[in-house]
Amino acid sequence: MDPCTFLYKSDPARGRLWAEVFRQQLPQVDFRIWPDVGDAARVRFIAAWEPPPDLATAFPNLEVLFSSGAGVDQFDLAALPPTLPLVRMVEPGIIQGMVEYVSHAVLDLHRDRPQYRRQQQAGHWQPLPVRPAHQRRVGVLGLGSLGQAVLARLVDFGFDCAGWSRSARELPGVQCHAGPEGLARFLARTEILVCLLPLTAATRGLLNAALFAQLPRGAQLVHVGRGPQLVQADLLAALDSGQLAEAMLDVTDPEPLPADHALWRHPHVQLTPHIASMTQPQSAAEVVIANLRRWQAGETMTGLVDRIKGY
Amino acid sequence: MDPCTFLYKSDPARGRLWAEVFRQQLPQVDFRIWPDVGDAARVRFIAAWEPPPDLATAFPNLEVLFSSGAGVDQFDLAALPPTLPLVRMVEPGIIQGMVEYVSHAVLDLHRDRPQYRRQQQAGHWQPLPVRPAHQRRVGVLGLGSLGQAVLARLVDFGFDCAGWSRSARELPGVQCHAGPEGLARFLARTEILVCLLPLTAATRGLLNAALFAQLPRGAQLVHVGRGPQLVQADLLAALDSGQLAEAMLDVTDPEPLPADHALWRHPHVQLTPHIASMTQPQSAAEVVIANLRRWQAGETMTGLVDRIKGY
Repeated sequence: MDPCTFLYKSDPARGRLWAEVFRQQLPQVDFRIWPDVGDAARVRFIAAWEPPPDLATAFPNLEVLFSSGAGVDQFDLAALPPTLPLVRMVEPGIIQGMVEYVSHAVLDLHRDRPQYRRQQQAGHWQPLPVRPAHQRRVGVLGLGSLGQAVLARLVDFGFDCAGWSRSARELPGVQCHAGPEGLARFLARTEILVCLLPLTAATRGLLNAALFAQLPRGAQLVHVGRGPQLVQADLLAALDSGQLAEAMLDVTDPEPLPADHALWRHPHVQLTPHIASMTQPQSAAEVVIANLRRWQAGETMTGLVDRIKGY
Repeated sequence: MDPCTFLYKSDPARGRLWAEVFRQQLPQVDFRIWPDVGDAARVRFIAAWEPPPDLATAFPNLEVLFSSGAGVDQFDLAALPPTLPLVRMVEPGIIQGMVEYVSHAVLDLHRDRPQYRRQQQAGHWQPLPVRPAHQRRVGVLGLGSLGQAVLARLVDFGFDCAGWSRSARELPGVQCHAGPEGLARFLARTEILVCLLPLTAATRGLLNAALFAQLPRGAQLVHVGRGPQLVQADLLAALDSGQLAEAMLDVTDPEPLPADHALWRHPHVQLTPHIASMTQPQSAAEVVIANLRRWQAGETMTGLVDRIKGY
């Protein structure tokens, strides 16, 4: 790796942990934390949650832009130089956190924990009928690295699992559906729906009344994609009509959600503040360094974004 | 298997599912549901949650008593004929339910979900620091078939796992402790304590102030053993002092808990009505039939209780 500057523009406390990994593994690279840019002409790589303004003109020798998170929907793709490689974060910490969050969510809904919480508030001791996991139909929208890892754990628990993706996939123990024509079949059999899709023009507003109507009555939603994929008014209406029984949301639109928003206090909504999965700074830096080595060697970087698909 | 009567004395709806399995797999056996005893002298086997009164005199040819649940603490062991074999229910449905419940509980506590629920009630969007699973020290008291299955799944999630049992065990990926001298070391390192012990004279009242004081400050408790193992007043005091941060209880003393009991409404207690794990009638009947065949062949039955140890 030739000497150059790697510019980091995201949470500074996490950046100092990246700096330590770079110092040990790539000491010839000048790792800098925004706004300490140094000589902008030496910046060949940037990792950012929100990229610096005027990227192309401010950093004339920029070669690769890394997202510091799992998504790139926070980038205005149209405003970026069209040939600049963009790389999503594909990192074991993100995957592990998401497997934990979704496993908890599916078990919480599968085992009627929302109802038991309401019974606890009322001081009411009442066991409810239990269904074995193999009779519970769980479906995951989005079969990228996160969706695959989540499904592998749900299969371990014995759930009846299906997945849906834009293009066809095969996963062990999972009934896979693909494309627009596969979506209706996938939804018709899914009692607990997990959304792990990236945010694109095609997924914005996808979780709406028309989609909820295709699920079996009383289905439950776990939303860990992106806030703008969900039409929040349609969710509230589906919960109030009984079409959906429960929802667990980790993402909203906007974030943070205003303190007086109806979602906070709906009795069938559980809400967490976008914490399902976080990059672990140490392993994130190691993943980026491995990608820098691939780039240097002319190999394909892990998480390289298809600018047409948008993920 | 010679013709004889198998008497079932537990939930009748579940008993009818047992009857169907017996009809298919052991048609020569006369399967009867209490109180339809028939000729008591023909009863060689009983499966019961609470055994019939005057067992020895009422059923002079009784050979084996099966518990319809995972424990035998509901039996008055001293009142049973001393040489009568007692068999606990070791059944895949019980194990699967317990793995689900404890996985959910540990993830709930590990990922600060009680705190997020309180924040939701206040309309407060505040991400909390996340620790990776390998930095979270989980400990399981009791390493029978349930404890082993639970630990295997917690190891899958990457938790730093330990276990404690009366006599020494070895489990893959688990730091195992044993005996009274091992208990202090086990407790000192355990941040999330899961109790899966059987109820015996030695475990009654074990979860008390002295034990809680040996855990790190702010530890969390998951109790899925038996209600009388927990000194409830000590738990409430430990929660109020901050020695314990959170508790999730599936068992209480008494059950059901009276509607006005303090545990129902403590802000750091989650309570479920003894639903962690239930036998699945179909597989329970199959397990009993397999044991009848072992008995007939002179082999050791799975779940045979040591009358001295009491489990």
